Amino acid sequence: MNNKGKIYVVGIGPGNYEHMTGMAIKAIEESDIVVGYSTYLDIIKDLIKDKKTDTSGMKKERERCLLAIDYAKEGNIVAMVSSGDPGVYGMAGLILELISDEIEVEIVPGVSAANASAAALGAPLMHDYVVISLSDLLTDYELIKRRIDAAGRGDFVVAIYNPRSKKRVKQIEDAREILLKYKKKNTPVGIVKNAKRVGENVVITTLDTMLEHEIDMFTTVIVGNNNSYIKDGKMVTPRGYKI
Amino acid sequence: MNNKGKIYVVGIGPGNYEHMTGMAIKAIEESDIVVGYSTYLDIIKDLIKDKKTDTSGMKKERERCLLAIDYAKEGNIVAMVSSGDPGVYGMAGLILELISDEIEVEIVPGVSAANASAAALGAPLMHDYVVISLSDLLTDYELIKRRIDAAGRGDFVVAIYNPRSKKRVKQIEDAREILLKYKKKNTPVGIVKNAKRVGENVVITTLDTMLEHEIDMFTTVIVGNNNSYIKDGKMVTPRGYKI
Repeated sequence: MNNKGKIYVVGIGPGNYEHMTGMAIKAIEESDIVVGYSTYLDIIKDLIKDKKTDTSGMKKERERCLLAIDYAKEGNIVAMVSSGDPGVYGMAGLILELISDEIEVEIVPGVSAANASAAALGAPLMHDYVVISLSDLLTDYELIKRRIDAAGRGDFVVAIYNPRSKKRVKQIEDAREILLKYKKKNTPVGIVKNAKRVGENVVITTLDTMLEHEIDMFTTVIVGNNNSYIKDGKMVTPRGYKI
Repeated sequence: MNNKGKIYVVGIGPGNYEHMTGMAIKAIEESDIVVGYSTYLDIIKDLIKDKKTDTSGMKKERERCLLAIDYAKEGNIVAMVSSGDPGVYGMAGLILELISDEIEVEIVPGVSAANASAAALGAPLMHDYVVISLSDLLTDYELIKRRIDAAGRGDFVVAIYNPRSKKRVKQIEDAREILLKYKKKNTPVGIVKNAKRVGENVVITTLDTMLEHEIDMFTTVIVGNNNSYIKDGKMVTPRGYKI
C-alpha cells in the first residue's frame, strides 16, 4: 500500500474479457481495492477473485464515487470500474467532480457501447455521428428533444444510449418521430442488445418499423444518415470513397 | 491456411500497446497476413515481427482494402489494421462496401481517438456529444458547416477529428466561428495531440483563444457544452448529478 492513494477510473469495455484493454487489466491488477456496481464486478469476477471489492446499490453512483475517494484517501490504489468507456456517461466525470484532494486520478479509456454496437452491426458510425442518452433522470427532457432535432437537422448518424426502460417508454417514440421530420422512413436502424457480451442480439430494421422490435435498457440504437444502407445483413454508412 | 479466408478489421486503439484490446491482439496473432498503412504497422511492429505484411501508400485506402480482400480470397486470414476504432472514419466501412463474396468479415472495435483524448483531458464527453471530421476530401464542405451549426444549436460537446492539415487551415477557424454563435467565449476547449501514445500533448484552453495553440492532423479538439468547466487542470462536463 502506498502512502498516497490513487484512483484508476477503468473502462472494462462492453463485457467480454477479450474487449478489455491491457491497461484496464493492469490497472485492476495493480489496485488494492476494486469499487463498482455489482453487475460490473460480476463481469470481471475471474480477474478480481483475490481482490478486496466494495460496491453500492443501483443509482447510488455518488455514494460509489465517495467510497472510492475514501479508500484512496486512506492510501489505497483504487480501481473504480465502469462498463464501456468511463468517460461516456460513466464514472470519470463524477469522480473528477467530487475529488477535492491531491489524489491522482487516471482515466483508463475503454471500448464504448456505441463502438461495440457499431462493430456488431457492420460500420454504421463511419461518418459524423451523435451520441445521445434518452434518460431524463439527470437531463431536462426538452433539452434531449432539442438535441435529437439538431441531430436530425445535421443528418448525423445517431447512437442512442438508454433508449427505453420499463418505466420510461415514450422517449424512443418521440425520438423516432422527431428524426422522421428529417430522415426517410427507410433509413436503416440497428438495434443491439448486449453488444459484444453474452446474449448479444442484433436487429437491423428501419426508422419506419423500429418500434416493432424489443428495445430496453441493455440496448443501443443506431439510426443511419441519409446515405446509410444495408448490405448482406450489415449496416453501412459510406465514408464517401468512390467504390 | 484455411480454405476459406476471413478478414478481421482490427482497431489498434490510440497507439500505445496497453490500450489495445485482447481481441485485437488475438486477431492479429491468428492472421496469416497483416495489411495496413505503414504508420500503423510500425506502431505494432513488435507484435507482427514474424508476420507477413503488406501495405499501400497514404490516401490509398481503397487499394489497401482490395489488397486485404484479395488475400482473403486466396484463403488467408487477414488482419486489416486501423488506428483507433476501425468503425469511426476507419477501414470497417470501406471493407464492407467493397466486399462482394462470401468472405467472413469481423470488426474488432478499439478505443477511438475521441475516447482516448477525452481520457487525457479529464471527462469532457460525459454528456451528449458529436463526433465530426473537418476533412472535406470526401465530404461536401457545406454539409460539414451545417453539421457544426447543428451541433452548436443542440449544445452538444463537439469532438473534432482532422481539425487542420498543412494545406487545410480554414476549416477549424470556420468551425470556431460557427460554434461561437451558440457557445460562450470561455467554453472550455481541449486540444490533444497524440492521445495515449508517444508524444502526447494536452492543452486546455477556451473557444476564444483556441487558435493560439498548435492544431494539426495528429490532434483531436474537444469543445465543451454550456456546462463544461475546468477543475484542477482537467476538463469536465457534468453528467447532472448533484455534487
